[in-house]
Amino acid sequence: MGEFDLIARHFAPLAGPGARGLKDDVAERAGEVITKDVLVEGVHFLPTDPIDLVARKALRANMSDVIAKGAQPTSYLLGLVCPKALGPEAIATFAAGLKVEHDLFGLSLLGGDTTAGPVLMISITMFGKPGPRGVIGRDGAQAGDAIMVTGSIGDGLLGLEAARANPPADDPAALPYRVPNISWSVHEVIAQYAKGSLDVSDGLVADAGHLAKTSGVGIQIKADSVPLSPWGYEARAAGRLAELLTGGDDYQALFTIDPSDIDHVQSRALKELRVTRIGTVTSDLMPGQVQVIAEDGRETPIRIAGWDHFGSS
Amino acid sequence: MGEFDLIARHFAPLAGPGARGLKDDVAERAGEVITKDVLVEGVHFLPTDPIDLVARKALRANMSDVIAKGAQPTSYLLGLVCPKALGPEAIATFAAGLKVEHDLFGLSLLGGDTTAGPVLMISITMFGKPGPRGVIGRDGAQAGDAIMVTGSIGDGLLGLEAARANPPADDPAALPYRVPNISWSVHEVIAQYAKGSLDVSDGLVADAGHLAKTSGVGIQIKADSVPLSPWGYEARAAGRLAELLTGGDDYQALFTIDPSDIDHVQSRALKELRVTRIGTVTSDLMPGQVQVIAEDGRETPIRIAGWDHFGSS
Repeated sequence: MGEFDLIARHFAPLAGPGARGLKDDVAERAGEVITKDVLVEGVHFLPTDPIDLVARKALRANMSDVIAKGAQPTSYLLGLVCPKALGPEAIATFAAGLKVEHDLFGLSLLGGDTTAGPVLMISITMFGKPGPRGVIGRDGAQAGDAIMVTGSIGDGLLGLEAARANPPADDPAALPYRVPNISWSVHEVIAQYAKGSLDVSDGLVADAGHLAKTSGVGIQIKADSVPLSPWGYEARAAGRLAELLTGGDDYQALFTIDPSDIDHVQSRALKELRVTRIGTVTSDLMPGQVQVIAEDGRETPIRIAGWDHFGSS
Repeated sequence: MGEFDLIARHFAPLAGPGARGLKDDVAERAGEVITKDVLVEGVHFLPTDPIDLVARKALRANMSDVIAKGAQPTSYLLGLVCPKALGPEAIATFAAGLKVEHDLFGLSLLGGDTTAGPVLMISITMFGKPGPRGVIGRDGAQAGDAIMVTGSIGDGLLGLEAARANPPADDPAALPYRVPNISWSVHEVIAQYAKGSLDVSDGLVADAGHLAKTSGVGIQIKADSVPLSPWGYEARAAGRLAELLTGGDDYQALFTIDPSDIDHVQSRALKELRVTRIGTVTSDLMPGQVQVIAEDGRETPIRIAGWDHFGSS
């Protein structure tokens, strides 16, 4: 049973006001958005990843959810589970990693809990201030919308490979896995223009599927329009496009807008960040269906596996 | 280095508005109190504990913090890390445990995250509605105050021993460890009368020390006035009083009031819960010092070890 089925079956009946039926990545409370992402050693980061970068990744994984809802991350609670072998220097380095993100993004720590455990685990609860239209959910995509994505896709996967192959900290190809290159300032663009939105953390195709399913629409992605990094172009030339489109840990925003807003979004966004149109929302497909079209106009068969921590298929 | 030193040295400089300097168990935000307690298999509960009771304990450990601040627990986010071997039935049983607490205490689930990991781990972020005087902190105890405690002390320790000795679910002596007997309705009493307050989770003497240190006062506890359960009386008769007073996992509220309010508190509280005076706040001791006085009026030497997950002493 996958994570989404588990949540739907057992936890959704427990959800209260503000929980959005557990169908989104955030809750709403007292005019704020709240998200909670847990990162576990060996699952979301490698034991060899530098601990200051692990701290930064934990904050960015949560900021990514907040940003994709058109909200500005403000503050957070930290639950830290540490192996006893981890010394005070490691804790100091971890805190220094948090401080880097505080200085970059104006975050502050609200409180939390530290305890011992078998592996390093970081549980963040992050608060954000939504824009004037409130939370931009997964449920707002409509047929005819343009599908936009920030940054580049596939670098999380390639970064994981680099981090595994070459654990020392200074491999630049590993950095997008260790410190996801979130597109912080897109939260204002999303707040103003987006109709449906979420972050890409399970893989582009899987997350497009979540958007499509919750909005009750189909999504068509043009494979050759998906933005890639130099590493991504190399991997694509090696025939690995399908892997890039389904790999996890990208932490980019995926959102839909009215096609008449594309120029506004891009002229505003291009100054500070990369926003690319990669496809169209359509009613010609089954609700929840994602179709990836190759350069030659034919459908690329892609198994929507994505990054499902409970996946058994 | 202990947990409290770690927090003070590395995390307190990162704290922002509402964090109360990380000197309390809760943060304040948008008129609510927020707490975050993480429970780890093998640290806060046993692998043999029934998983529905683990769910209930996780909620109660967090409710205990909220209640001790004079606030009513309302809703929470759940971060759940599960070993892959845990099947759908176990998840259903876990959710059923949450539901029991929802029905008892009017809680609702706001959102969260589920992921895989090496052991079961539950990270709760809980919200509460404070009383008209706001959050009752650790810093309000004053010389002359009476020290009050709810329920009985030492059952967490004895329950852990019973749970270890006899894993089947139906051992009544194990229950106080598995499902702490929190004193939910005391939140109203604390909101109205308490000056300094916190919950007893690290052991009575250690937590009295936290209260004393943060308030800058000394605390004198009369050992024979500490409320015990029938199991506690048995253990005391066996010469284990010091263990009861320093064992963890009691999840009772420890608070100070003006002595003139004792009758009000007890007449109100006795209808629904047990509140006992166990000592006095004093300026005759060093700030932060806790003195335990035995029946014969002599000081009982108790090493303030408590339940420090990072303790190395």
